[in-house]
Formats: sequence, structure tokens, C-alpha cells
Amino acid sequence: MDVQSYMNELGRAARAASRLLARADTNAKNAALLAIAAGIERDAAILLAANAADMAAAQAAGLEPALLDRLALTPKGVASMAEGLRQIATLPDPVGEMSDFAYRPSGIQVGKMRVPLGVIGIIYEARPNVTADAAGLCLKSGNAAILRGGSEAARCNQALAALVREGLRSAGLPEAAVQVVETTDRAAVGALITMNEYVDVIVPRGGKGLIERVSREARVPVIKHLDGICHVYIDDEADPDKALRIADNAKTHRYGTCNTMETLLVNDNVAELVLPPLAEIYRAKGVELRGCPRTRDVLPEVLAATEADWSTEYLAPILAIKVVEDLDAAIAHINDYGSHHTDAIVTENYSKARRFLREVDSASVMVNASTRFADGFEYGLGAEIGISTDKIHARGPVGLDGLTSQKWVVLGDGQIRA
Amino acid sequence: MDVQSYMNELGRAARAASRLLARADTNAKNAALLAIAAGIERDAAILLAANAADMAAAQAAGLEPALLDRLALTPKGVASMAEGLRQIATLPDPVGEMSDFAYRPSGIQVGKMRVPLGVIGIIYEARPNVTADAAGLCLKSGNAAILRGGSEAARCNQALAALVREGLRSAGLPEAAVQVVETTDRAAVGALITMNEYVDVIVPRGGKGLIERVSREARVPVIKHLDGICHVYIDDEADPDKALRIADNAKTHRYGTCNTMETLLVNDNVAELVLPPLAEIYRAKGVELRGCPRTRDVLPEVLAATEADWSTEYLAPILAIKVVEDLDAAIAHINDYGSHHTDAIVTENYSKARRFLREVDSASVMVNASTRFADGFEYGLGAEIGISTDKIHARGPVGLDGLTSQKWVVLGDGQIRA
Repeated sequence: MDVQSYMNELGRAARAASRLLARADTNAKNAALLAIAAGIERDAAILLAANAADMAAAQAAGLEPALLDRLALTPKGVASMAEGLRQIATLPDPVGEMSDFAYRPSGIQVGKMRVPLGVIGIIYEARPNVTADAAGLCLKSGNAAILRGGSEAARCNQALAALVREGLRSAGLPEAAVQVVETTDRAAVGALITMNEYVDVIVPRGGKGLIERVSREARVPVIKHLDGICHVYIDDEADPDKALRIADNAKTHRYGTCNTMETLLVNDNVAELVLPPLAEIYRAKGVELRGCPRTRDVLPEVLAATEADWSTEYLAPILAIKVVEDLDAAIAHINDYGSHHTDAIVTENYSKARRFLREVDSASVMVNASTRFADGFEYGLGAEIGISTDKIHARGPVGLDGLTSQKWVVLGDGQIRA
Repeated sequence: MDVQSYMNELGRAARAASRLLARADTNAKNAALLAIAAGIERDAAILLAANAADMAAAQAAGLEPALLDRLALTPKGVASMAEGLRQIATLPDPVGEMSDFAYRPSGIQVGKMRVPLGVIGIIYEARPNVTADAAGLCLKSGNAAILRGGSEAARCNQALAALVREGLRSAGLPEAAVQVVETTDRAAVGALITMNEYVDVIVPRGGKGLIERVSREARVPVIKHLDGICHVYIDDEADPDKALRIADNAKTHRYGTCNTMETLLVNDNVAELVLPPLAEIYRAKGVELRGCPRTRDVLPEVLAATEADWSTEYLAPILAIKVVEDLDAAIAHINDYGSHHTDAIVTENYSKARRFLREVDSASVMVNASTRFADGFEYGLGAEIGISTDKIHARGPVGLDGLTSQKWVVLGDGQIRA
């Protein structure tokens, strides 16, 4: 069978399963999640062996160390996959939630019901934990899933797929509710993102190359995360302690995450006050600084930033610093160079905080908090399938609600249109 | 200047205007809406003369009568454009609305703010009223708009564009907040739907050919309306009076609208009871019936329906009728053959109503009401830019809220991630 026919078959099965899943009750979905978690713990040794085989093949093929790191599964990683599924089971079921019912002059009563999107295609790199995570989130939100993980993780993903099928079966749910693509042929991705009769939305998770390819070629709507070029703006009415604490944490808490600060903006009036102690903090942690001319007046040892630095997501211990004249300049810089992901202001001034929140066009806007908080768990979503930098449907961390939509419900007593 | 450069220029101007519009206060937006309405009334004669010139050219070019009908602007049509804009001015401003703020264990407070999408591209056929309508809805929702109307309406659209610019200027808003594409070159559409650096969402309004082309070629997300294959299912526990009234109204109130019933489903147990009086009603109104074999047992004079009838949007006095065994068969038929637009059940049975609402996968699901109610005004949205048959972002009638999104707002006191 060719790849297109194989993918069509998965699509057809997913569509049929999605109908059963949409009407499945909460207990059945939770039972499946708990059964999968139990299976993962029971078969930990099998999963670790499959991962070891994946790792050996990837090493032999000369995979980069960073990618090998992500591929590696530890006993702790196995335990946290199971724990993640149990947490998803404890979250409220979004499906069928009804709201906003109001009577209209015609006598009909109109409201909304939260419903699954249908079939979700998830394309990700060689990270086995995404398989469990994505399966759990789609299942709980009543969506069928077609998962296409990186080929380097194929053995471990197939072992997980067997456990997911077992868990679905034990809860009386269709096994095709979660399907893991078995072929490692790259044409499978092309098929998945263009089967709009079978797939309702694509969620790509991975590097920029993958996301750009999917965005370019998809015929199915995409919920995507592109760049995380996040800013902290230290206003001249900032509390200096909060400013130092937040600018430190936003950059150095973790370097490789999308909600890490990549550019620090500092109001000219407080450049002399805050830049030297910040430079001290960053120097101690080995963060390379690249500054605008005004920054280098205050910190002569700092490298000169180039135009490209303002739109670079380093994902590394490197920070661009720009001194700006005022709030307007800060907002303009963020809207021009940022990636509409997460941006924070540090200020004690109410009106400036209010303007920043309204005028910065980003998925998350913050006052006096670290950009590192932009995360599904921290926001109370319980889990996230990713962080969207798109504007339609869902912005920022996408949890169970982001995997659903709302349909209109009309209740009448025989009303007709006059 | 070539078309691509011209469209890029519109895009750049729209992006800049969208930033100013996003922060514009409600009064300024309402003042612009009212000024445009006043301008339309003042210049009614100019608009009618421009439309007369468009009509003459279209007739000379041999445009179809149905399209000429839509192109025609009457004094009443001019008045209702102005009235529509005044109504939009009275609607609550969705922009900046904040909701769902809750404290998290870390001490940050997390909520949402409703924000414009940015720049909306609207592509429509030769209907001058859409120009005023779309401009008004985009403006009120804080979005910049690029409008591309059918070339047959070019003179009238440019006259309206001048009035919109005048209204924006008088309210201190940027004129580029609403731009009407001046070239009638079809390449302008291709440029508009692929400029994802300048355009955030495309709303095509028109026939299936247009929608399909836009969906196929767009690189920008699309909010679209494809088909309206709507069903009414008369259950065996239906109140016969309500059943007849709703089945009549859903089909015959207007034939050419997307929320008109195209297929009637009747429970086998009541086929003899409801089909003969319904056939009587339809016959009197000149509706052609096409039935399944069981329908033709009851109504021998009815034409035989073919497989194609179940998935045809007639937009005409033609109705397909199918007798089904039970609720399961009705739901399966709707989900298989329908267009996920609007479907209604007529029943007095609580549990069947509840199942229909949950299991029918359509943008609007109804109990004991005519499908003709699926409409932004009837639902209380005040106005609509269209009715979406997509699943992500907005389903069903799309009003001001559907032209916005929500960003996350985090309020802190210096919190950092531990």
C-alpha cells in the first residue's frame, strides 16, 4: 500500500472514532487515561528497552547530541509520562459544557456547547513523552488523534501506541481514537497535513524548519508555535528589586525555553541604576550580553548588538539589551521585533501598566512577573499541547479548551422565522 | 506599479493602521461609524449613480440576472447600509474586555483580554452592501480591513470607500483602517490571501467557486462558509403541529439562504402521519419533492431521490425527503451527508433532544425551532460577517466576537518562576 492510501486509511478510521469519542462519557475517557498510565508503569522496562534501541540506532546514524538528549527516556521520564496522564484524568471534562443561554425576542433560547474539534494531527520530533502527552490531551478533549513522531523514536512510540490501544480497549473506546503513524516515510507528513476531509487541525511541535514546512504546505488549519522572542521592559518607575529579580529569572531560569527573555529593554532614565547590577548577575552566570550604543555607554565591556540581534531567538545564554526613551518606544520595539509570544513590563505606574497590557500585541502580556510563567501549568490549564503564536482560535498556552470549539444550541417550542 | 507591490503597500498601511485602531477608544470608533452612515445618506444620489453605471456596464457585459440582482442598489438599500452602521455603533465594544481572572498558587493573577485579530482581508462578490457592512464590523472590532469586492461593483465600492475614509478622518482614525482594493486585476486576490506578514485572517464571502479557490491557495487563515445542507428531523415523538410548522418554515420561508432546510428526515413510525399534510403544504407552494423509496410508498407521486440529492444544496424550491428508522439513523445521516451548518430535531422527548444536541456535529443544533434562525441577528450578535462552517476559531454566525481573539494577561508583584 502506498503512503497516501495508508494515511487515508488512518484518516477514515480516525474520523469514525472521533464520532464515538465525541459522545463518550467522562468516566470512560478517564478510565482509558488511567489504564494507559498503569500500562506505562507496568511496561516501563519494555519502553526503556525500546528507547535504548532507538538511541543506539540514532547514535550510529550520528544524530546531534541535543537531539539525542531529547530522545533519551529515563525511568523518571517514564514515571512522569504516567503521572501526566493521571493529571489529565483529574482535569474537568470540557466536552458538552453549556454556557451563555439567553432568551431572544423570538422566544428561542440561544447558548453554546463546547465540542471537540474532531480529528487532530500532531507532528513532532523524536520525543517519546510527547506521544503520551498528546494522546492524553486529545482523548480527554474528545478528539481522535493521529500522531506522527520523529522516526528516531519509532520503536518507543510504537510500544507506547500499543499501550494506548490497550487502555482505550479496556475502557470500551475505539482503538483508532489514537493512532501512531507507523511508516517513517516523510511523505506521511505531506499526506496528513492535506487530508482536510479527515483531519480538522494540525498541531506541529518542533523546530522552526518543521513548523515552516507544515505552515507552507498544510491545507488543514494549523495551531502553531513559531518563535519565542520575549521581552522584559524595565520602566523608569519600576521597583528596582523586582526589576533585577524578574530580568534575572526571565533570562537565566532556563535558556532553551520559548518563554525565556531574549531582549531586555531598559528605560533611559534608569539605565545607570539597573544595568550595572544586572550585568553583574549575568556575568556571574555566564550570559553573553549584546547591547545598543547607549547600553555600551553604561557597560563598555558589552559587545555591540547588530540589527539581527533584535529578532533572534537565541535559546542560549545570550541576551540583547536596548535602552529605550520611553514606554512608546518599548511598545513599538516589541511589536516590531518580537514574535507576539510573551512580553512583560516592570513598573509601579498604573497607567503605564494598563497601556502595556492593551497595546502590546502578544499572546501573553505581563506586569511585574517573569515571562517564564507563560505555560499551561502555571496558567492553570493543567496541561498544554503547545503555545500558539497564531492569532485566531487559541493564543498562548493551548490546553484542553484550545482543543475544542463551541457550537450554537437553540432551544425552542415550535418557533418559526416570521 | 505591479499588483503584488500595490497589495504589499496596502498591507503595510493596514498593519500600521491596525495598531492605532487596536488602541482606539470606543467613542472614536462609534463616531466614525456614525459619520460614515451620515455620509452615505448625504451622498445617496452619488452612490445610486455609481451603482447605475456599474449596472449598465454589467448588463452590457452580459452578467447573469441573479448577479445583476445582487449588484443592484436601491434607495432602500442605501438607507439600510446607513442603518446597519448605526446598529453596529450601538453594539458593545468587544475590544479590551477582560475576564476570568484567577490567582494561581505562584501568586500571579491570570486572566484574558479580548483583542482584535489585526488585519482582516474580505473577498466578496459584487454586492455593495457588503462593503459598508464589512467595514463597519471590522472597525468596531478594532481590526483594519482590506476589502476586495467584485469588479462589477467597482464604481459604487470606490464611492463608498471615499465616504469611509472621510468618516475615519473625521473621527481622528487612520484612513488606512479600511482600504478598498482599487485594481480589478484578479491577481490582487492571490496576493491578498498569501501576504501573511500583513494579513491575519481572510473572510471570503461568495459562491462555492470563490471559497474553494481561496481555501486552496490561501497562506493566511480563512474563516469560511462552504455549504448549507441543513436538515430537520421529525422524530416519532414530535408534536405534529410543531413538526409541520417547522418543516414548512425551514424550507419555504426563503429558498436561497444557507440556513434553509435541504433534506427532511422523518421517523418511519410517523411517516404516514406527517408526510401527506406536508406534501400538501409543499405542493401548494410549488416545492418539488424528491424522496427515498419509503417516502414514495407514502407519497407515490414524489420523484425518486438519487444518492446525489442527499448532499446537494439546492438553494431552490426543491426538497429531498428520507424516512429513517430511528434517531441513530437520523444523526448518522446528518453527520455523513450534511455540511455541519444547522440541523434541527422536532421532538417532545427530553433524552432524544439531549442526544441530538450532543451528537450532531454542526455549527448550530436546534430543538423544536426552524433552521432559519441560524443568523447573527436572531442569535443576538447584532450583526454578522458571515456564517462559518469551519471548526476552529468560530463556528456558525460570526459577529464582533468572532473577529477578535483573547490574549493572556498576567498581573504580578515581582513573582519569578521557582
